[in-house]
Amino acid sequence: MADTLTTTAASSVKQQAQAAKQAAQFLAAAPIEVRNGALAAMSEELLTNEEIILAANMLDIDAARAEGIHESMIDRLTLNPERLAGCRQALAELIAFSDVLGEVIEGRTIAQGIRMKQVRVPLGVVGMIYEARPNVTIDAASIAIKTGNTILLRGGKIAQQTNDVLVDVLRKALVKVGLPDEALQNLDATSRDSAHELMGLHGLVDVLIPRGGAGLIKNVVENSKVPVIETGTGNCHVYLHEAADLEMALSIVMNAKTQRPSVCNAAESLLIDDWAAKDLFPSIAMALADAGTTLVCDEASKAIAAAAGVPADLLRDATEEDWGTEYLDMTISVKLVSDIDEAIAHIDQYGSSHSEAIVTDDYAAAQKFSAGVDAAAVYVNASTRFCDGGLFGLGAEIGISTQKLHARGPMGVKALTSTKYILEGSGQIR
Amino acid sequence: MADTLTTTAASSVKQQAQAAKQAAQFLAAAPIEVRNGALAAMSEELLTNEEIILAANMLDIDAARAEGIHESMIDRLTLNPERLAGCRQALAELIAFSDVLGEVIEGRTIAQGIRMKQVRVPLGVVGMIYEARPNVTIDAASIAIKTGNTILLRGGKIAQQTNDVLVDVLRKALVKVGLPDEALQNLDATSRDSAHELMGLHGLVDVLIPRGGAGLIKNVVENSKVPVIETGTGNCHVYLHEAADLEMALSIVMNAKTQRPSVCNAAESLLIDDWAAKDLFPSIAMALADAGTTLVCDEASKAIAAAAGVPADLLRDATEEDWGTEYLDMTISVKLVSDIDEAIAHIDQYGSSHSEAIVTDDYAAAQKFSAGVDAAAVYVNASTRFCDGGLFGLGAEIGISTQKLHARGPMGVKALTSTKYILEGSGQIR
Repeated sequence: MADTLTTTAASSVKQQAQAAKQAAQFLAAAPIEVRNGALAAMSEELLTNEEIILAANMLDIDAARAEGIHESMIDRLTLNPERLAGCRQALAELIAFSDVLGEVIEGRTIAQGIRMKQVRVPLGVVGMIYEARPNVTIDAASIAIKTGNTILLRGGKIAQQTNDVLVDVLRKALVKVGLPDEALQNLDATSRDSAHELMGLHGLVDVLIPRGGAGLIKNVVENSKVPVIETGTGNCHVYLHEAADLEMALSIVMNAKTQRPSVCNAAESLLIDDWAAKDLFPSIAMALADAGTTLVCDEASKAIAAAAGVPADLLRDATEEDWGTEYLDMTISVKLVSDIDEAIAHIDQYGSSHSEAIVTDDYAAAQKFSAGVDAAAVYVNASTRFCDGGLFGLGAEIGISTQKLHARGPMGVKALTSTKYILEGSGQIR
Repeated sequence: MADTLTTTAASSVKQQAQAAKQAAQFLAAAPIEVRNGALAAMSEELLTNEEIILAANMLDIDAARAEGIHESMIDRLTLNPERLAGCRQALAELIAFSDVLGEVIEGRTIAQGIRMKQVRVPLGVVGMIYEARPNVTIDAASIAIKTGNTILLRGGKIAQQTNDVLVDVLRKALVKVGLPDEALQNLDATSRDSAHELMGLHGLVDVLIPRGGAGLIKNVVENSKVPVIETGTGNCHVYLHEAADLEMALSIVMNAKTQRPSVCNAAESLLIDDWAAKDLFPSIAMALADAGTTLVCDEASKAIAAAAGVPADLLRDATEEDWGTEYLDMTISVKLVSDIDEAIAHIDQYGSSHSEAIVTDDYAAAQKFSAGVDAAAVYVNASTRFCDGGLFGLGAEIGISTQKLHARGPMGVKALTSTKYILEGSGQIR
């Protein structure tokens, strides 16, 4: 019996992918007016069907509560009129963003006068595997349609009823503008097989983007035969160089750590040049403690923090493991370093190549850190919290890539495109 | 014992990769003068050590002959003064090609006046898994160094002695210009484990590029945890539209099929608009037959070819399998289609998205084919044989990508780069 069920799930996901691939040519050929029209229709449908959506979401929430799911997860699962309005606002911004398809990336006349151009085209079929947040369903679907792609969505099991309704509603919008509704499909989230089958569809699915916890991402990276863009882990550092301005350092550390500690661009670790630490660290340590932050310190920084008055219950000794830990809560590791080289080497060893910041008034240090730190985004005198596709002007954000292939850092609309060479000749042969 | 051996091989490949990662920061920081200097030194060392290289190559050739390896493979394995001179010529062209590192791809002022720029950087550690050709060792090593990367080379077992000597020689060049020789390392090709371990080094190796037969590529795509760029398979079509010029069609078909049938950008299939086939096909069929090409035909095209005088021993009935076959020899499949839509649909179904050509004098047909065919390179009135990184002006070629992620089509120096966002502020927080 188990075998039979597995086979059924497999063939169903494959059939859905085949339908998506068929639909992809229509999406790729759809003019920008039609694709933007679809986004506008999505926004309308979300408003018209708000009650049905929220009712389905309530069923998921009730079921999740009954299963004893943690309230932080329930919060991620929850939709409400404000959050849906936020999604519609994002749709409006995406409509306003210029089309990237057809962009000529480079071009020249090559051998024997052949005119060559490299043109931006859709990827084709995009697969998303994600967790509780149903707003990802709307975000991912809209970015995919904007860029002429079709998309297979495999959300979290606990959001299945919400996602079913959301995808139905969004598909209505596609049909309204004459696009095939196979361009947007929800996979069965109640079975683990559907994710596994999706990972096996090499040749049918062009990219797989996992979004969620470390376990989910590791599973997809290790098991997918479809090319993957790895997202997520952000073990981000703020490095206070000896020439840092104290007021600016305080402001950036507090913002990077405490403004929204649960997200990947929040700071997890503070590095301070040791001979300036006695000037820089006391007031920062106290401000962090006052905000309820636990300081996980090396010996030298702990002594400064304790002397500054940080209560013992907010001080902990750092272990080797702490330097590599993404806390995602009100905890920060602190280490004194002898100079900028040690800071860069530490970030290189323990960082996740996401967002790394230096605070300094020194030109050479700023240049050295920018060039020497190998990360998706490097900040000089600004908070790591700016790492965001919308803020970067990329039109939207479908995730933050922590790999170096295809896309690195916040992924906007261009991350969902590929290219194609077109060569126009008049009979040339080699 | 087997377990012990496996562990030893594994830890050795991992240690090599760790050394490459350590070296990567020096390569990334090396100015273009030093990287070009390394390429110039490589060229010198290849010339100085030509005798030693050819002697090692002769040992590999003798061993391969003793094992009864096919002569076509022996040919790929063979180095000689002319081929080495070709490699040195490629090095000279690569030196002349402008540096792509540091290129600002885009940039703007974002929130609160933060200045953002996206800059081109090296990928880091590149892995190559390939087969008999030792010239790939030189090509791949030189492109990696030009672009500030380190590279782990895992060539074919039958070329091991040649590759050992080549890598030794090339590493001398790195040391001469002050670069770490860990930037270029040869893996043990006598063990299958070394390839397998390389595929498992997620987090240490940034990209894996397989080059070789379909089996090798499939193995890497299915088993690698490191991001892969898929290369190779070219089931390329030439489509003769009803408005094709006969003389041009003849010239392009002959060149695409017969000039070098063993390479991936050679044509494998000929599609002809059915109502023009009686005008277009007879002379082309005879020219192909005169060149010794076997025609694998559908019923309608077979009748035309037979009537034109193609000998029966060069005519074969096409099966479903033929439409998807990359012959890589003097064989071509032939099918009549009712119109351009059927041609595009056929290419979509059976093609490998590599290089696809249309011959036509019709503007609308040229536009429709260019936009509608989903391939890395689409040719209007030119031979598919132009698909080449050097000819495209990309500085070199490390392979031809048939996937859509990261790089598509001929991969030149830019394919070995990633990007990094640098944000310069004055204390901005969110």
